[in-house]
Amino acid sequence: MSERIDALLDAARRALRQARRLSPVDRRRGLRAIAEAIEGRADAILAANAEDVEASPDLSSALRDRLRLTPARIEGMARAVRNVAEQPDPLEEERDLGVGPSGIAVRKKRVPLGVVAVIYEARPNVTAECSALTLASGNAIILRGGKEACRSNEAIGEAVRAGLLQAELPPDLVTVLARSSREEVQALLGAVGRVDLVIPRGGDGLMSMVDQHARVPVIRHGQGICHVYVDAAADPQMAADIALNAKVHRPGVCNSIETLLIHEELLASTLARLGPALTNAGVEIRADPSAKAVLQQNGVSAQPATDADWDTEFLSLVLAIRTVANFEQAVEHIDRHGTNHTAAIVSGDEAAAERFLTEVDASCVLWNASTRFNDGGELGLGAEMGISTTRMHAYGPMSAREMTAEKIVVRGRGQVRA
Amino acid sequence: MSERIDALLDAARRALRQARRLSPVDRRRGLRAIAEAIEGRADAILAANAEDVEASPDLSSALRDRLRLTPARIEGMARAVRNVAEQPDPLEEERDLGVGPSGIAVRKKRVPLGVVAVIYEARPNVTAECSALTLASGNAIILRGGKEACRSNEAIGEAVRAGLLQAELPPDLVTVLARSSREEVQALLGAVGRVDLVIPRGGDGLMSMVDQHARVPVIRHGQGICHVYVDAAADPQMAADIALNAKVHRPGVCNSIETLLIHEELLASTLARLGPALTNAGVEIRADPSAKAVLQQNGVSAQPATDADWDTEFLSLVLAIRTVANFEQAVEHIDRHGTNHTAAIVSGDEAAAERFLTEVDASCVLWNASTRFNDGGELGLGAEMGISTTRMHAYGPMSAREMTAEKIVVRGRGQVRA
Repeated sequence: MSERIDALLDAARRALRQARRLSPVDRRRGLRAIAEAIEGRADAILAANAEDVEASPDLSSALRDRLRLTPARIEGMARAVRNVAEQPDPLEEERDLGVGPSGIAVRKKRVPLGVVAVIYEARPNVTAECSALTLASGNAIILRGGKEACRSNEAIGEAVRAGLLQAELPPDLVTVLARSSREEVQALLGAVGRVDLVIPRGGDGLMSMVDQHARVPVIRHGQGICHVYVDAAADPQMAADIALNAKVHRPGVCNSIETLLIHEELLASTLARLGPALTNAGVEIRADPSAKAVLQQNGVSAQPATDADWDTEFLSLVLAIRTVANFEQAVEHIDRHGTNHTAAIVSGDEAAAERFLTEVDASCVLWNASTRFNDGGELGLGAEMGISTTRMHAYGPMSAREMTAEKIVVRGRGQVRA
Repeated sequence: MSERIDALLDAARRALRQARRLSPVDRRRGLRAIAEAIEGRADAILAANAEDVEASPDLSSALRDRLRLTPARIEGMARAVRNVAEQPDPLEEERDLGVGPSGIAVRKKRVPLGVVAVIYEARPNVTAECSALTLASGNAIILRGGKEACRSNEAIGEAVRAGLLQAELPPDLVTVLARSSREEVQALLGAVGRVDLVIPRGGDGLMSMVDQHARVPVIRHGQGICHVYVDAAADPQMAADIALNAKVHRPGVCNSIETLLIHEELLASTLARLGPALTNAGVEIRADPSAKAVLQQNGVSAQPATDADWDTEFLSLVLAIRTVANFEQAVEHIDRHGTNHTAAIVSGDEAAAERFLTEVDASCVLWNASTRFNDGGELGLGAEMGISTTRMHAYGPMSAREMTAEKIVVRGRGQVRA
């Protein structure tokens, strides 16, 4: 292991031990100090970000938009950190499990997971939000962002550490590893017993590296191949509204849909409304033959969908449309092609909707609502470390509470086992 | 991947899909049918077990005891399966998270983890209990027990599958892989996307193999280097009773202690009571110089403890004893040498006890009670798949509930994001 990684993991572990004694009041004080430090260093963060933007002239406009910071976005970061301080402290949560047969009192109490490494790509605000959620949950964090954002992440990391120092908390709770080699990332992934959890957020390339090298526990925030299914009993106008929103509201993010599944009985009525709306929004459509024919009748052009389209996260204004003969075909398609992220049904039939909500395996399943609601803020859960697409430990948006585990706490009066 | 593993993983996945539609009534009917099938095939199971015992003449008496089945133990297995049927069905649990800002109704609903592989060592009753917990939580399971128990496990597996068939449930929910090569186990550990979770239960050898080969999520039921700490404010008789029970009640199991830590002020009073009791119970003592001296004053002989003793899971009538100068030394010792399994404090000082319960990182921490209570049944949680010593997903005894995750279920009225 590289000396740098070795040293920073040691420092994080020491900070984690010191943090055990912090109270909820200490953690909230730290969060407010971080928010103030981000505001106080706004100019330095903006200057670093301008250098990042300048150093990557070839970024797509979508990626450039994700990378670029503005005074308003920095204000948003500080606000997100303050919002975390308003949430209930997860380490205060204790559950009573009652009294065991021997008379011992049994409770569960939340504890931090430990040293967490987050490996992510473009957006620098992730650096601030993950730092805040880490402090709020008593963990220590190593943040490894994308190289495009390295100067921005360093500047935000300096602000976070300054805030921690200001609040007399251990600064090594947060380490930004902005410029790091592939070998250093692999060292983190292999640090059994020293890194307690890795959260990779990104596309296939990052995930294969993690599959290949991770020896420590992983919670993936994987890609989102998300679906809307328009059931036979759907209101076609509601179906068109939800599908349009799920595709065009913010096409570059993970909870937007890539594929729309339409029951054959609703094909004509839904596409008569949706087809022109998609065209107006500049969406490129890739459709199966039945859907393509209906679109053409409505004066909407579409490319023929290929098999590869069902497995592609377009992250742009492209939508694949497939006709299904029945409910089962829709669920089977999502089973085969979905990435356990988000799936919605539009239907007026409660029984069909409840069956969909039960049978579809995704971190968030919705009935008569846009997939764009799979987001900590929209669900009322606050900021998030990521959206877990694995069923281990957390499934869906991970807030501070999901960054903890429950240990068993027993209080007795001298009981021994008979 | 070997053809056999490939085929059985496919079959398990198909069974898992079929099991999605089962109701709580179906699952309970299946559990009762499994209990009846175990009872109905008791003779065949006992005969297979006798062959296993005969085939391993060199087992230690402790291991032989773990391996051997009797009519009473088979009755106990059936009873454990029926007890699982009496527990609340985890898949019925839904939590209301309230209404999001857009008016969507947000709930969490429990879902199975998927295809689970358990790799374990001696005791054949694990086969029956893990099968029952798997059915109760909607999962499918691959059971790979130790080779000493292979005939017993096969016979129990046949009974379980017969019970499932009898109840018209998919028998491939439970597969016993009794005779398997190392390569086949490695194939299971590497089956990303096909095995959703591996639970290894055993010693260091198994754990290093898992560390080396696992590419799928792992929850370890690792070894238990457990501790009792006798605080300065302890009642010496209670301390002696708890330490004795934690060591000798069943020394071969994971929640027994290996090391006793005693505050120097309590050394004389505790060991005056405990030393002779340990000797009477046939315990070999390995003590640091201070403890050794006090034991000798009480006519109790001890070996000098070596550094290696603090890191050894004796699993037998051997106890290491160390004197500590203060509370902090005790916590530091447990931090360094404990395996996050179980730790108890004996103290009359509530503040010290609460600090111990907060600061010690173990799946179960106890105040004035024996470590032997870290057990699903004793804690009132029912049967267990194992005791997790990792903080990811579960920490402590894993019941059927811990074999599930929570997905987010949203019910709307056509909401889209603005």
